[in-house]
Amino acid sequence: MTAPDFDAWSRDVATRMENVLAEQLPPSRIAPSRLHDAMRYSTLGGGKRVRAMLVFGAGEVSGAQPKRLDVVAGSVEMIHAYSLIHDDLPCMDDDVLRRGKPTCHVEFDEATALLAGDALQSLAFQQLSQARLADDPAAQLEMIDLFAAACGSRGMAGGQAIDLESVGKGLALPELEFMHILKTGALIRASVVMGARCGTPLAKEQLAHLDRFAKCVGLAFQVVDDILDEEGDAASLGKTAGKDKAAGKPTYTSLMGLSEARRFAEELLADALEAVESFGPRAERLRQIADFIVHRRR
Amino acid sequence: MTAPDFDAWSRDVATRMENVLAEQLPPSRIAPSRLHDAMRYSTLGGGKRVRAMLVFGAGEVSGAQPKRLDVVAGSVEMIHAYSLIHDDLPCMDDDVLRRGKPTCHVEFDEATALLAGDALQSLAFQQLSQARLADDPAAQLEMIDLFAAACGSRGMAGGQAIDLESVGKGLALPELEFMHILKTGALIRASVVMGARCGTPLAKEQLAHLDRFAKCVGLAFQVVDDILDEEGDAASLGKTAGKDKAAGKPTYTSLMGLSEARRFAEELLADALEAVESFGPRAERLRQIADFIVHRRR
Repeated sequence: MTAPDFDAWSRDVATRMENVLAEQLPPSRIAPSRLHDAMRYSTLGGGKRVRAMLVFGAGEVSGAQPKRLDVVAGSVEMIHAYSLIHDDLPCMDDDVLRRGKPTCHVEFDEATALLAGDALQSLAFQQLSQARLADDPAAQLEMIDLFAAACGSRGMAGGQAIDLESVGKGLALPELEFMHILKTGALIRASVVMGARCGTPLAKEQLAHLDRFAKCVGLAFQVVDDILDEEGDAASLGKTAGKDKAAGKPTYTSLMGLSEARRFAEELLADALEAVESFGPRAERLRQIADFIVHRRR
Repeated sequence: MTAPDFDAWSRDVATRMENVLAEQLPPSRIAPSRLHDAMRYSTLGGGKRVRAMLVFGAGEVSGAQPKRLDVVAGSVEMIHAYSLIHDDLPCMDDDVLRRGKPTCHVEFDEATALLAGDALQSLAFQQLSQARLADDPAAQLEMIDLFAAACGSRGMAGGQAIDLESVGKGLALPELEFMHILKTGALIRASVVMGARCGTPLAKEQLAHLDRFAKCVGLAFQVVDDILDEEGDAASLGKTAGKDKAAGKPTYTSLMGLSEARRFAEELLADALEAVESFGPRAERLRQIADFIVHRRR
């Protein structure tokens, strides 16, 4: 189903983001250098940039200017990077490897990793308020509000808290879903909606369609992560595989079994595609991204 | 010099902030409860609320609506609370006592403390984008930009990084000043400028006067902290006294001596008062706050 040019496009987005983030992040030569080094270390050079792809894909729906999408995608990737830095800390998941490299606190130290995450969050908001992202500044304030909510205690940070509490206790399927909707889903939804809001204003109903698309895609992303984790090994994932299971963390595969989880991912993909059907060809990139998320091998 | 009603006013601000923050923070009954408990534990019930006072004092200069100042003051106090939570963590200052209570990671656990700080930062930005703080939404975006810069790697988080690097190495006086200008000064300056920007728009020059006032007050705050720390004991400060010195952290008193540090604080106070002279009676609260900061006994 993947259109012939998707691979090239996704590589372009990754390259573009690398350049954009290198510009957006403070240079190492400016004090405090070690902090800036750590921020750059953990944000540059990697990842699939799925969130950035979603920002750009959603921007195509509303004909948004790429310059605006750069700002939103950069901020989203900074928040994602900060969440990984904090998530990897010894008091959280205690991971030493991320994207095949030592984690931030291993490469630097715990305090620097903590502060690098903190400063990345601030920088994301600084960017979103500094540049012009919407013709109407009041609309831009709404975008920042949405973004902040996606990061906070009823978004990403809250999802991490629920994740922590679940260790050893086990979660039922609805609780697992609630956790993921907050932990990874909120930022993915913000990526899509904010990307779309950078362009020609959409009707409320259209934004609701995009939000539903993003909700399905966010959940599918997590289900597929669990499937790959179950199947995978450290080499192919670039992180310690099977670790969640070993830590007694509930996963879709442990709760549903592998084949049912695969079926669920396909169902979510179908729902996502249906949600953006009315947009026609303008949503083609979003469809490709959804397809990529569900059918990726790592 | 303190006007007869300053004590009553500062108590009123403290009470008001307690109520405002109790409303602004997510209630414990909403999931994730433990995270919300930790956010409330570390933000409510304490502190001198110096930053909130500065927001309200600066708001008087421009005749700002109290409702707007509540939002700004709440956000500033949330950022301050988050910085203390992270600063107290074992990988940072490793403090067990704060405002006479167990620190957040002692009362809860390290992971919860980490996430509570993270979520408080997000919530501060959510508030600043959600409410109307200026008649012109574009001006409000500028306020958020300023605020984010004050929190980030060239503001508070950066100051903490420099503070950490300085342990055992020693800093010269200009470096110590640079560290404090970032670590505590940036947020204090943002408090004053944002409070003032909630009201009738001021001229650039007037904002520069307020910024100079805030810069002096911020530095004086730190110098007096070092003096009190040198003189004090754990009971009167509510934190482990003399700890910075014991940890080999440079302080104004260790670099200047006690009497010279006292003289420097008075000099900064005089500079601060001069900076806001042109505002006349509208800046009376700011003058009282500056006087309080320099002459407080704890």
